[in-house]
Formats: sequence, C-alpha cells, structure tokens
Amino acid sequence: MEKLKKYVSVKDEDHFYHQGAVELLIFNFLLILTILTIWLFKNHRFRFLHETGGAMLYGLLMGLIIRYVTKSPDVESGTVYECEKLKSGPSTLLINITNQVYEYQYKREISHHNVNGHQGNAMLQKMTFDPSIFFNILLPPIIFHAGYSLKKRHFFRNLGSILTYAFLGTAISCIVIGLIMYGFVKAMVHIGQLKQWEFHFTDCLFFGSLMSATDPVTVLAIFHELNVDTDLYTLLFGESVLNDAVAIVLTHSISIYSPKENPNAFDAAAFFQSVGNFLGIFAGSFAMGSSYAVVTALISFMHLTKFTKLCEFPMLETGLFFLLSWSAFLSAEAAGLTGIVAVLFCGVTQAHYTYNNLSPDSKMRTKQLFEFMNFLAENVIFCYMGLALFTFQNHIFNPLFIFGALVAVFVARASNIYPLSFLLNLGRKQKISRNFQHMMMFSGLRGAIAFALAIRDTDSQPKQMMFTTALLIVFFTVWVFGGGTTPMLTWLQIRLVPVGVDPDEDLNAKAASQSASNLDKNTTKAESAWLFRIWYGFDHKYLKPLLTHTGPPLTSTLPGWCNPVARLLTSPRAYGDQLKDGDTDYIINNDELTENYEPSAHIPVPAQDSTGSIQATGKEDIQEGDLGLGGYKLQLQHTACQPQKNSLA
Amino acid sequence: MEKLKKYVSVKDEDHFYHQGAVELLIFNFLLILTILTIWLFKNHRFRFLHETGGAMLYGLLMGLIIRYVTKSPDVESGTVYECEKLKSGPSTLLINITNQVYEYQYKREISHHNVNGHQGNAMLQKMTFDPSIFFNILLPPIIFHAGYSLKKRHFFRNLGSILTYAFLGTAISCIVIGLIMYGFVKAMVHIGQLKQWEFHFTDCLFFGSLMSATDPVTVLAIFHELNVDTDLYTLLFGESVLNDAVAIVLTHSISIYSPKENPNAFDAAAFFQSVGNFLGIFAGSFAMGSSYAVVTALISFMHLTKFTKLCEFPMLETGLFFLLSWSAFLSAEAAGLTGIVAVLFCGVTQAHYTYNNLSPDSKMRTKQLFEFMNFLAENVIFCYMGLALFTFQNHIFNPLFIFGALVAVFVARASNIYPLSFLLNLGRKQKISRNFQHMMMFSGLRGAIAFALAIRDTDSQPKQMMFTTALLIVFFTVWVFGGGTTPMLTWLQIRLVPVGVDPDEDLNAKAASQSASNLDKNTTKAESAWLFRIWYGFDHKYLKPLLTHTGPPLTSTLPGWCNPVARLLTSPRAYGDQLKDGDTDYIINNDELTENYEPSAHIPVPAQDSTGSIQATGKEDIQEGDLGLGGYKLQLQHTACQPQKNSLA
Repeated sequence: MEKLKKYVSVKDEDHFYHQGAVELLIFNFLLILTILTIWLFKNHRFRFLHETGGAMLYGLLMGLIIRYVTKSPDVESGTVYECEKLKSGPSTLLINITNQVYEYQYKREISHHNVNGHQGNAMLQKMTFDPSIFFNILLPPIIFHAGYSLKKRHFFRNLGSILTYAFLGTAISCIVIGLIMYGFVKAMVHIGQLKQWEFHFTDCLFFGSLMSATDPVTVLAIFHELNVDTDLYTLLFGESVLNDAVAIVLTHSISIYSPKENPNAFDAAAFFQSVGNFLGIFAGSFAMGSSYAVVTALISFMHLTKFTKLCEFPMLETGLFFLLSWSAFLSAEAAGLTGIVAVLFCGVTQAHYTYNNLSPDSKMRTKQLFEFMNFLAENVIFCYMGLALFTFQNHIFNPLFIFGALVAVFVARASNIYPLSFLLNLGRKQKISRNFQHMMMFSGLRGAIAFALAIRDTDSQPKQMMFTTALLIVFFTVWVFGGGTTPMLTWLQIRLVPVGVDPDEDLNAKAASQSASNLDKNTTKAESAWLFRIWYGFDHKYLKPLLTHTGPPLTSTLPGWCNPVARLLTSPRAYGDQLKDGDTDYIINNDELTENYEPSAHIPVPAQDSTGSIQATGKEDIQEGDLGLGGYKLQLQHTACQPQKNSLA
Repeated sequence: MEKLKKYVSVKDEDHFYHQGAVELLIFNFLLILTILTIWLFKNHRFRFLHETGGAMLYGLLMGLIIRYVTKSPDVESGTVYECEKLKSGPSTLLINITNQVYEYQYKREISHHNVNGHQGNAMLQKMTFDPSIFFNILLPPIIFHAGYSLKKRHFFRNLGSILTYAFLGTAISCIVIGLIMYGFVKAMVHIGQLKQWEFHFTDCLFFGSLMSATDPVTVLAIFHELNVDTDLYTLLFGESVLNDAVAIVLTHSISIYSPKENPNAFDAAAFFQSVGNFLGIFAGSFAMGSSYAVVTALISFMHLTKFTKLCEFPMLETGLFFLLSWSAFLSAEAAGLTGIVAVLFCGVTQAHYTYNNLSPDSKMRTKQLFEFMNFLAENVIFCYMGLALFTFQNHIFNPLFIFGALVAVFVARASNIYPLSFLLNLGRKQKISRNFQHMMMFSGLRGAIAFALAIRDTDSQPKQMMFTTALLIVFFTVWVFGGGTTPMLTWLQIRLVPVGVDPDEDLNAKAASQSASNLDKNTTKAESAWLFRIWYGFDHKYLKPLLTHTGPPLTSTLPGWCNPVARLLTSPRAYGDQLKDGDTDYIINNDELTENYEPSAHIPVPAQDSTGSIQATGKEDIQEGDLGLGGYKLQLQHTACQPQKNSLA
C-alpha cells in the first residue's frame, strides 16, 4: 500500500463568499498596470517593450510575489488517504467525512516528483486556471477578431503565398523541429542527461507542431503603428493567422496518431490516417464556421425583406451576431473539430457577408465589441503567461532541452521562410525581397497559441518539460524579437514613415490610399488563379445577392426560369444599392472581373458601378486594431435601414 | 464505519479536450432562442411574456430535457470510499489511484437524503455552475449598469422617498417575512409537517432579507417601452436598485448575527453588533465604490491637463474604465464588504464625474459596452434560473412552506408600500397617488438578486428549502406579475402613451422633454432638503472642478490664498466649458442653486450658463436600456478632445 500525503487547505467558511474575487482582482490589477504602461509608452514613443511584453513582465513579477511572499499555510496540515478501490481517476468523487458527504471535482493529475513542491500553496493553485478557459473563452475573441478584421483585398492578392507559408511552411517547420528535437533527445539520453522516459518521435513531432504556431500580436501591432509596407504586413498577418489554425489541427492530428507496434517505427496506415484526420478536421471546422456565418447572414438579411427590422434593435442584432459567432466555435469543439479554425473562418465569412447586412449602429458596435474583447483577452493571456512561470507547479526545466528547442525553432523558421520564398518568387511578379524575407524570419514570435496548446496537456513528464520549454521560448521571442522589431525594421530599411512624423495622424487612411494607388503595380500573375476567379464569379453572382444586399440582383444572374424564386430571394435594396458594394475590394483586376462576369449578366453592369466600388473600398475596409489611432468616423446614415423603394427596378 | 457509494463518471480522455464547450453551447443556444423570441415579440407587440420570462421558460424546458432525456451513464458504476482520517472537507484533495496522484477540488456538500437522486448525471452536475460566477461575473455588470444609467435629476428629486422605501421599507419587509415565516414554521412543526430541523428565528429573518430584494428588470423594461409616468418610473427604479443593495447587506449581517446562548432569544448585544455591521459594511462599500470612481475620474482628468491625452486612445480609456469599475466590486468583496453596493455607487459616481471627462468616442463605447454586458448577463441569469429548477440536485419542495412564503412576501410588500406611502405623502407636495401605490405593490417582483443570495448557501436542509422556495417565488412573480404589468397599467390608467401609436419613435427624447416641462410643477418641498443643498454646493464648487472639466474654475470658488494650488488643479477647459455643464440636471430649482452658489463666486455666473445647462440636460442624460429604441445619435465632436486654448481666461 502506497503512502500518501494530504495537502489540504482548510475550507475557510469566512472567505468562502469571497472566493475568486482576490484572483480576479489580481488580474484586474495587472491589466490596469499594463494599460497605464501602454499609455506611458505610447506617450513617450517608446517601442522597445511592447504592451504584450509589458503584460508578461508584470505577470512575471506578480507570480514571483505570489510564490515567494505569500504564505503557504496548508503545507503543514498534511496527512492523507489511500483509495484502494479506485481504479482510475473519476471526474467526480463523493466522500463521506464525519457523516457528511462532500463532492469533489477532478482537477488534474500530479506527477510524483512534483508532489512535494509548492503543492500546498492555495494561492498558487487558485492562480493556475483551467486550460479550458483559454480555449473556450480567451482564444475565440482573438482569433475571431483576426478573421473579422482581415483586409480582404490585400489578403486575396497574396492568397497563394499566404497559403503556401501557412500549410507547407507549417508542415516543414513541424517536421524540422520534430527531427532536431528527436536527435537532441537521443543525444541527451546517450550522455545521461535524460532518463529512460518514453520520448517517442511522435512526442517530438507534437512539440514541433505546437511550436510552429507563430503569434501575430506583437509584431503586427508594431507594424500597424509604424505603417509598414502593406504587402509585408498582409503576408505576415495572413501567414500567422492561418498558421495558427494549421498548427492547432496538426497538433490534434499528431496526438491522435497511434502506430500499432513500435512507436518509433513509421506506420504508413497510421500516418495516412493522421493526414486524413488533418484534412477532415480542417474541412469540417471550415464548414462549421462558415455555415454559422451564413446562418447569421441569413437572419440579418431576412429582417429587411420582411416588415420586421432586426436592425432597429441594434442590441439584439449585436447579441445575435456575438452569440452565433461564439456558437460556431463551441459547436466545432463539441463535435470534436477545431473551434479555432471554425471561428477564424466564421469571422472571415461574417466580415464578407453579414457585415454588409448590419445596421450602421451594429456595424460599429460589433467592431468595437470585438476589438475590446480582443484587447482584453490578449492582455489577460500575456499576463497569465508571465504568471505561469512561477505559479504553475509542475515545471521541468531542462537547460539542454530548452537550448535544443531554441535552435530547432530558428532552423525550422529559416527552412520555412527562405526556401518557400525562393519558390514563390519564381511565380510572383512582385518578388518578396531579401529584406522582407529577413523580416519574416525575424517575426516568427511564439505566443498565445503555442502556450495554450502546451498547457492543454501537462499530465506526463515529457509534456511538462515541453510546456516549460514552450513558455520560455515565448518569453524569449516576445521580449527579444518583439522588442527588436523597430530596430530591425530600421536596419532592413523597411519602414515607410519615419518615427516622430505625426503619430496622431490617421495612418490607416494613408495606408489605404497609398495601397490603392499601388493596386495595379502590385498585381501578380501567380495569385490571380483561375480557381479563384471562378469562386469570385460564383460568389458575386449568387452568394452575395442571396446573403447580402450587395451584388447584382439574383433575377439578372440566375437563368430565366428561376425568375420567380430569384425575385423572392432578392433584397429590394440590391437593385438600387449596387453602388455601395464595397466588397469588390478583393478584385484582382477590374478588367478580369468584368470579362468573367458579363457573359451571363442580363443587365450590363453600369459604368459607375466599378468606379463606385473602388471609391468604396477605403470606407468599407475593416481596419484592424484601432487601438492607438481611433480615427474612424462615427457618423451614421440611418437611411441605410430603410429599403430604398424608389430605386426598385 | 459508514457505507458510501461511489458515483463516478469515468474521465473520458477523448472528451477531455472539449470540456465546457457543450455546456457553454447550451447557454448560447438558449440565449439565441431568447433573442429571436424577443425580436418576434417586439415585432408583434406582444407584451404578456417579457423577455426575462421567455428566457426563464426556455431554461426550464432545457432543464427538463437535460434531466429526463440525457442518459446518466455513471449511476451504475457506483462503488465508494470511506476516508476515516479526514475531519473536515478540505478544499483540495490529493488521492493516489493505481500509483498516480490526482488532484480533486472541493465542489459542495451533499445532503444524505439527496445522494440517491440524479446524483450520477454528469450533465446535470456540469450545468449547475459555481455561485461565485454569479457574484463575481454576472451580477456586477447589471448593478453597475443600473447605477451608470440612473437618471440623476429625477432620482434626486425623489431621493427622500426612494431612501425611505429602500432602507425602511426593506427592513420592514425583512422583519414581516421573518415573523410570518417563523409562525408558519412553528405551526408546521406542530402539525408534523416539518421535522425537528433547527429552523431558528434568524433563519427566518435570513429568508426574509433575501426575499426582500426586488428585481427591477422586467417591470422597468416594460415601463420604459410604454413610456410610463417618469416619477413612478424613478420611484420604482430607485427603490429596486437601492433595495437590492440594502437586502444584500442585510442578508450578510444576519448571517453573521450569532447570539451567544439560545438562538431564538433576543440578544441585545448581538443585535446591535449586527446593526453596526450593517452600517459599517454599507458605509465601507459605499466608500470603496466611490473612491474607485474618483480614481478613474482623476486618471481620465489628468490626461487633458498634461500633454498625454488618454482620450486619443479610446480603447485604453474604455479598458481602464471597465477594469477600475470591476475592481471596485472585487476589492470590496476581497475586503469582506459588499461588492454589489460598491459597484452600484461606483456606477453612480462614474456617471457623475468620469463620464464628463471621457472622449466622445469612449462615452459611447462605455455606454454600449455596459448596455451589452447588462443585456447578456441578465438573460444568462434568467435562463439559468429556469435551468436550475431541474438541474439543481438538492431541491426540497415543501408546499406548505412555499405557500407561507408567498403569503409572507405579499403581506410584507403591502406593509412596506402602503404605510410608507402614507407617511411620505404627508411631506410630499406631489402626492404618490393611490394608483401609483397599487402599481408599486404590484411591481414587487423577485429576481436575480434573491436567487443569487439563496443559491450562495445551499449546504444545509433549511437553506435548500429556502432556495427552492425562492426559486419558485421568482418564477411566479416574473410570469404572473411581469406578464400582468401591461394589463395592470391599463386598469390603473397609468400609461401615458397608448399602445400602438408609434413604438419606433424615440420615446426617450419625448420623455425627457416632457419631464423637463414638468420640472417646476413637480418640485416637492420635502425633497429639496438643506442637507442635499449643502452637498450640491460643495460638489459643484469643489469636487466637480477638481474631478471634471465642468463647473466653475477652482480659482473662483476657493479662497484667495489657495489661488496657486487652484490654478494648478483647474482644467483649462473649465474656464471655457461652463456652458457644457450638463450635470446641473439634478438641480431642484435654478433659483435655489444660484442663491446658494453666487455669494462665494468671484466671477458672476453669466446668464447663458443656466440656460445652457437646461438645454444640455436632454443631451447629457444617460438613457437606460436603449434595447429596442437605439435612437441616440452617433455623431461625435472630435473637438472636445483638444483643450480650447482660445477660451483660457
């Protein structure tokens, strides 16, 4: 019979009522400090420590205080229990103590070697919150915001390159890190630095996949403030957003991968099953996310055709929008798919269709709401990462492993960016310059996603070691590379507007107009693929009229015999509001579009349509992270809520 | 040795990753249903079931489904454990199961007679979430919103009556319910309906205090839509908001009350200690809430006097505002005070001082954010109340007790409203009419606060019976009285605007202008007490200039020798912006004000000042619950962000 110790913090009746308040207060305090610091930094144009780095630093200090200053009053009162009848850890446990039944809930597994640590410190235990909070509450707003604020025109212009970096690049990165780490682990076992743990190749690949998720937050915030070249911005933004999705699905697929015999041997069947899993999960999540967005678009579209106008109740509209988007995430998770991928594509689709149906008030409300949630969630995560270094109780620091991981991460990033850029440049008219490649290499920070993937599973010792290593790599990259972004940009001569010109000016507007003038120059042949053009035509002719008030009326795009149905489905505004179609902003070339569009159109597109769409782009573009600039106009046109009856054809 | 059973739900590794997603999805689904229903109801002008009633109904149905349709796969696998060494329920439990240590967290106490019920249904367990979530996350936004959206002018005009109802009325209600329930319990024990539980008089008082918290949500939402008489609205709003605070502190004080000997005997020392507790907690919470608001005001004020302008970063400003307000709640809770009271007064103070300092963008952002959070939190709570009837596992239904409680609640409400109205009418010029009194009697719904107070403590059997009873009374009052509000208003001939005139019109503006014209007519002598006038003078002369940009410059109100300090502390805008002082809207009478203000003012108030303030009232008034009406203009004046240098004296 094993001897166990009891590490018990006595249930304090007096403080029972205030449970949770102190922990939340600590987070609030950290966030307030962070905001005040950001304000100070912005004021002094101090860019060497970004807000995320600051949040992490404060978290770190707070963790230090909690760990070494607060008492751990429960360690002494330790005596414990053996439960012989239990065969596995149940999720709920009923225990009879002095004739009263208490219910206990499963929290986590604890490794033996760590039981003696700071186990008894109740404060530490309370500060380490459930990983499911990360995944269900903190991550969705960040990812959704990324999708919702995607600059469509630039994104689609560079779609080919972005997809290459995101899919192929992440796969390369994962495999390279996996291989290097496997070599390192073998060597460490050989020289006796690592004991006979079961550190399989799949574990190394798992680590590789989670470390392949790059974080857009820090670098892009700086890019945004400094008005860096829009193409570089879009490449990095698109890559890091999609790459998160790919890395998450990859991690999930690898954790399912289970070869039958020797775990180190290559099992073709299991491998293909994993690839199948990857594709299935990705496609399923994509479908789940998009369909929720389509439902939202349909609901918000319906209200204008009927006499009920949902847009008269901006609160309901915003609430529905918010809840349906979150449901996309939760449904995907509940169905065993990947919520992050679902919510990302939900965001993209919402911006593409639903956004056009919203009332002007709701457009602004949703934008500000998601911006705010994104801001809070981001800073909470970075504070928590700082805290976790001292409050998480099962760290395993292995300097050699950490060093190896650091090397692996850089080699992997290099073998992702440089070869792929070389290949892409073969097809691109507008080459990705050497300096851009260096900047992309430099921008491979690791952040929230890598951390969240690592903390999801810390049951076994290899996983704990991976978690500790991932955390330290996040610290290192955010502080060193995040802090070095501005000098690096100067050094590589990428920045467009010198520091100190006029930071109060609306950089977004400038960027938009500047990029608009570059529109034709930057057009690359490789990107405007036929598949994309077919999709665009289909979207413009059928989906947009069906789901939004923009685009040509369905009656003109559908065959004649569909006319009664088409008339029913077309919004009255569609006839008159073609001018307002701001979503043509991802058209590669206006000539290409009309060439593809005109043959089946019964009503020729009026000349002012295309000019109108170009003028509208700047207005309709969702600008991301208006954190410091807040320059958008809040003037609303309430007329948009009423169907324009006089413009009915 | 006692025999125990093990009710264990096997930890499913596959579903471990998705934990929490399904439960959140259920709530999302309920909320989406509720929103769609509200939309439908609003469209058909169907007012017999309010949204809160609808949310509760959906929750009830969902609870029914979860309880009786979902499988409870864990009941069969029951075998269990005795832990002889444990003397009390620890908050954390380490258990060694087949050589692996697992950590378990204390969840709750379970009464013996309930262990056999639906204990094993994991779904039910997951749906009953922690009461601390109510208190720390769901309630604060609702209460803060109430304080933030208080219509100051009407509130202060009726302050005396509101305070009487809130303090004296709640105390009366608590004692009456306590006495009646004590009689009922005695009688029930006598006829053998109730066993020898220890149902002391303090328990009855505890029940009385928690049942005295009336809920403003349902009735006021209907009042707001129907444009009911503003004085009645304000009386009910003020009463129900303050009454919640009083009831919470009262419940807390009673739960601390511990007479030394016989718990049924009256212990003068313990009683006075409880009264002292009540006053101390109330005053402390008030101070805590206001001081956080003052800090926020100072921070947001600072930015305009220095070259750093926080209002250029609306996101930071909004974030700081949100976090500091929430911190007021959490600090009060952590300090053993009452967070709800703190956050209420924090809201009132924020609206009074900080709101004036915010940039126009932030003004709207904060208003919309808190409105949205209030909307979501409210509907989550009402859904959850519906769910709780079937998912909460320790209900004790006692029909006699429930009947007694129902009677007690009505008798208590009657002995609160009618006698106090009679007394107040002795002093009021504008009497509270008979019909108003009936309507106030009728509007005594119980809601979120009563429920939250009851669910906070369900460890013992009397407390469980109280919880069940409270829940059923909430159902009854929300459905019957909430649904009956519209007919009752018609019957009592209180409604001002007949149904169906034009609900799309901006009722707020109409109400504001109408009430402005009634300003002089409604002035009552009893309300404009000297204490209030002194406070107003102090606030206007010293606090407002110190904390906001409104009011007279400090240099004119402070004595001459304070001039250097005063000049330092006065905002440059204060000299020029006196016209914009919209917060004089709670002045009882402009003549009274100037009479009180002029003697010490060095610069005479220009004539257009008072006219300006009257014109500004409609604009600056924070309108509550713009849920359906959304009629405010979103045009911002960016000029407010820049100090008007030309207007410097």
